Amino acid sequence: MPELRKDPIIGRWVIVATERSKRPSDLTRGSLTDQGIGLSAKPIKKCPFCEGNEAFTPPEVYALRKEGTGANKPGWDIRVIPSISPFLRMEGELDRHGAGMYDLMNGIGAHEIIVATPKHEAGTFLNDVSQIEKLTGVIIKRMRELSKDTRLKYVLIFKNHGKVAGGSNFRHEHVQLIATPATPKRVKEELTGSKRYFDYKDRCVFCDMLRQELDRDERVVAEQDGFIAINPYCSRFPFETWILPKKHSCDFHKMTKDDIKGFSGIFHTTIKKLTGTLGDFPYNIVLHTAPFRSRKEKGYWETIEQDFHWHLEIMPRLTQVAGFEWGSGFYINPTKPEDACKYLKGA
Amino acid sequence: MPELRKDPIIGRWVIVATERSKRPSDLTRGSLTDQGIGLSAKPIKKCPFCEGNEAFTPPEVYALRKEGTGANKPGWDIRVIPSISPFLRMEGELDRHGAGMYDLMNGIGAHEIIVATPKHEAGTFLNDVSQIEKLTGVIIKRMRELSKDTRLKYVLIFKNHGKVAGGSNFRHEHVQLIATPATPKRVKEELTGSKRYFDYKDRCVFCDMLRQELDRDERVVAEQDGFIAINPYCSRFPFETWILPKKHSCDFHKMTKDDIKGFSGIFHTTIKKLTGTLGDFPYNIVLHTAPFRSRKEKGYWETIEQDFHWHLEIMPRLTQVAGFEWGSGFYINPTKPEDACKYLKGA
Repeated sequence: MPELRKDPIIGRWVIVATERSKRPSDLTRGSLTDQGIGLSAKPIKKCPFCEGNEAFTPPEVYALRKEGTGANKPGWDIRVIPSISPFLRMEGELDRHGAGMYDLMNGIGAHEIIVATPKHEAGTFLNDVSQIEKLTGVIIKRMRELSKDTRLKYVLIFKNHGKVAGGSNFRHEHVQLIATPATPKRVKEELTGSKRYFDYKDRCVFCDMLRQELDRDERVVAEQDGFIAINPYCSRFPFETWILPKKHSCDFHKMTKDDIKGFSGIFHTTIKKLTGTLGDFPYNIVLHTAPFRSRKEKGYWETIEQDFHWHLEIMPRLTQVAGFEWGSGFYINPTKPEDACKYLKGA
Repeated sequence: MPELRKDPIIGRWVIVATERSKRPSDLTRGSLTDQGIGLSAKPIKKCPFCEGNEAFTPPEVYALRKEGTGANKPGWDIRVIPSISPFLRMEGELDRHGAGMYDLMNGIGAHEIIVATPKHEAGTFLNDVSQIEKLTGVIIKRMRELSKDTRLKYVLIFKNHGKVAGGSNFRHEHVQLIATPATPKRVKEELTGSKRYFDYKDRCVFCDMLRQELDRDERVVAEQDGFIAINPYCSRFPFETWILPKKHSCDFHKMTKDDIKGFSGIFHTTIKKLTGTLGDFPYNIVLHTAPFRSRKEKGYWETIEQDFHWHLEIMPRLTQVAGFEWGSGFYINPTKPEDACKYLKGA
């Protein structure tokens, strides 16, 4: 079982693979870009994500299926499977302990792959709003289900596309889900920051951002059906784009059917504008939503519903993260977000 | 002049290039790996870092020269020049202001390139301990000089090697120096974390780490002349290696001549072991040292000398940073540090 180790200085957790630890030759051959899919080691003859090839994956966790079709058989629109080499596993009790001055826990959690379309071509689902709607519905279903497990504190939803962004070599569109037994450091930072703002201003920092962006209209890429897409004022990456609901809400998984429709629409528009401007660009997409609140922890949860506002971050990876960023936590962005917005609006 | 913009949620600063903002075509051509050198745009016929080509760079800031040689002429061992397209500039007063709800300041600071050897071949200086000693001496000289400027709060020293690590295409070994008008977020995190540990334990967290590592000897790569190189317990990257002085000290630039000798020796040993194991691998090297303490800020400085311990982080970039890391601030490391250490010890 993988091990979660905690950095004693800044409290960052690292998932350390303890079985099949990679040797120098595994690493220098560059075989590690298929982060978490677990298929990189063997050459793939049949794509295991394609309809008809269900037998090549572990049994499905869930699938959105046509009536009358059976589990692990064709006939699905979206299919959720466990990762073939998961970073975290659901079996067992959470065991936290020390190793001298260090802290660790066993790798309890979930690692699922959400196959976004039965078709193999890259980008297939992105051209089809109804498929995005279905995918969003399935993600929400999985989040609601996992929120019942009190060992889990957070569900991280993300998509890696392109080699430099840690994406797969084989291009069957999918999204990853990782549920963790600790609230991620990055999530805590956002919660703490937005709480500090609310304490001072009595307003949500994201709602204030929305208001200012709509008012000045320099960085608004799109606005439709209750959602907004912006190039944030403080973009770390060229063409970084965030999607936010205009109505304040901290939980992605509490969207209504209408919300899902609106979100899918603006996501589709935004991706179309980005690919229209940048071509087939490498990117990471990460959902920023509130942690599960089945129990209280350090007072974060008390005011989270007023403090925090869920959003989706689309990060084109056209620049390298290098020594300056690693050492400072600051970023260098060679493209002004206002300029990025002009290009995207025109696309 | 570039602009420093502050993220209103988590307080992260981003340096936004306001002149010559990059267009989509600049980005998708992948010309941005020469972070900060400013030479990527034109094809290079003569390497401006080579001895004899001094006229192709801006006038030098400092050079370690043979007696009797003149500035911007051959005869140097280490040469410091301003970056050709600097992220930050020294001219002018620091101007902090608001833009609605956002905060920004002008890009005051320094961005220097420290050319590590007069010779062109990659890795030249790394094979020569006396050259590493000279380089370390020059870095310290620049840090001491810049510490006198009260507008500056931190000097970040780093080296990028290899394309995926944001390194240059042309391989004349150099180190970068960026002095910032704000204490970097990442530095504050380490200061806060090590202060919290000291408050609780009455001991330095790094000194405790050293003691435990030497005691258990599972992750010690080398120990010589008052320094130690370890694969930290909570390594984010395969073969991540840190170098620390065994004697507690928070300031890199307060090393004595003997310290510099010891540091250069273990750095040389460590790099040799890493290249012996991984070949010519991409990496970022980042110095983690205390901020300048010409004035007090938020109480950090009062106890910094007891709390913090400088160290150098060598981060091989053989794995990709992808959605999981961006969303969580956690890392996935496919190689156990204990296994990495076995390989390095054997190299």
